[in-house]
Amino acid sequence: MSAPVTVYGPAISPAVARVAACLLEKDVPFQLEPVDMSKGEHKSPSFLKLQPFGQVPAFKDHLTTVFESRAICRYICDQYSDRGNRTLLGREEDGAVGRAAIEQWIESEGQAFNPPSLAIAFQLTFAPLMGRATDMAVVEQNEAKLAKVLDVYEQRLGDSQYFAGDEFTLADLVHMPNTELLASKTKTAGLITERKNLSRWWDEVSVRPSWKKVVELQSVPRPPRS
Amino acid sequence: MSAPVTVYGPAISPAVARVAACLLEKDVPFQLEPVDMSKGEHKSPSFLKLQPFGQVPAFKDHLTTVFESRAICRYICDQYSDRGNRTLLGREEDGAVGRAAIEQWIESEGQAFNPPSLAIAFQLTFAPLMGRATDMAVVEQNEAKLAKVLDVYEQRLGDSQYFAGDEFTLADLVHMPNTELLASKTKTAGLITERKNLSRWWDEVSVRPSWKKVVELQSVPRPPRS
Repeated sequence: MSAPVTVYGPAISPAVARVAACLLEKDVPFQLEPVDMSKGEHKSPSFLKLQPFGQVPAFKDHLTTVFESRAICRYICDQYSDRGNRTLLGREEDGAVGRAAIEQWIESEGQAFNPPSLAIAFQLTFAPLMGRATDMAVVEQNEAKLAKVLDVYEQRLGDSQYFAGDEFTLADLVHMPNTELLASKTKTAGLITERKNLSRWWDEVSVRPSWKKVVELQSVPRPPRS
Repeated sequence: MSAPVTVYGPAISPAVARVAACLLEKDVPFQLEPVDMSKGEHKSPSFLKLQPFGQVPAFKDHLTTVFESRAICRYICDQYSDRGNRTLLGREEDGAVGRAAIEQWIESEGQAFNPPSLAIAFQLTFAPLMGRATDMAVVEQNEAKLAKVLDVYEQRLGDSQYFAGDEFTLADLVHMPNTELLASKTKTAGLITERKNLSRWWDEVSVRPSWKKVVELQSVPRPPRS
């Protein structure tokens, strides 16, 4: 029997990887359904019913559909509160204050970290895959923007082990797909390794079994669709 | 006695307005503390303790500080669940599924709607206030990006009265500051008025007492600081 949770999209997509990492942390079984973006499947009427912007991932759990990777992650934590890692959105006894300590860093990821880091990853990783030229001016402009964000993170990760305190939470998890893309390229790895606290954090979070499994999913070429 | 909740920043800032609108919907008393950005007060060491990126708003509730406007709004809804509008993050009986229906549109606001609409508002509203020239090429590039997002919204608001269904929620509220800025400029008002469902939605949400109060806060010049 197939799992009720389906994630639509390729694991190499940072947003798909974010959702997969969350499901693995929460020990929620799921299937990854390919979407052939080179054939425009993400713009098909049936896909747009799941994801109105025509972006990956789309997500379905029984009859519930959710879009936007960070909203999907929150849903997984709320819906499967009794499975796997139970403190990704804080401990119940810490209430609204505990969740806010996590939410503020999830938002800073979406607002401050993601735009420049995704722009860099697009140029260095995805443009070559799509047969497009890399625009190094775009890379450098975004490295400068990203450096300012990473300086704030470096200070934060000097004050606490993880973004929101002493425990690994969704605030850490949402940062991982783009950090993996930066760390895996010679051109950008220094953005992480040259910052002592950020580098210590990445060494710790990137060896979690959930993340190692995501990287495995990303590196296995999918079989051709029948 | 002063209110325990303090929002630091000018009401004209869309992110400050977002938090103020949420506090007014929730009937949570607050004070607005001026931050003189022209003097760089948002980059001072004391401000950076509240908001590590040096951006407005900063937010304090007794001893709790939270940053990022959408994280602050979620905190207000969670912490003051028994005050004012009790369904901004969904009805309790609708659980994780109900909250996800709202969260996905909050995320689309942050990821898809905010970047182009804020870029336009910066050029048409804030650049002139700062004595800078308006870059019409930037306005037009972002109008094209925004139009695609608004087309999705137009379809959505044809299917339901509000973003997340039959009730006004945080999904609607987070969109209001930038929509106000678009609607108030002749150059961009058509982006809203030319879309029937979006225009109907804006007519409905913008007359809410909470929003009229925000607009009032934005239009009153603050007294000089002593």
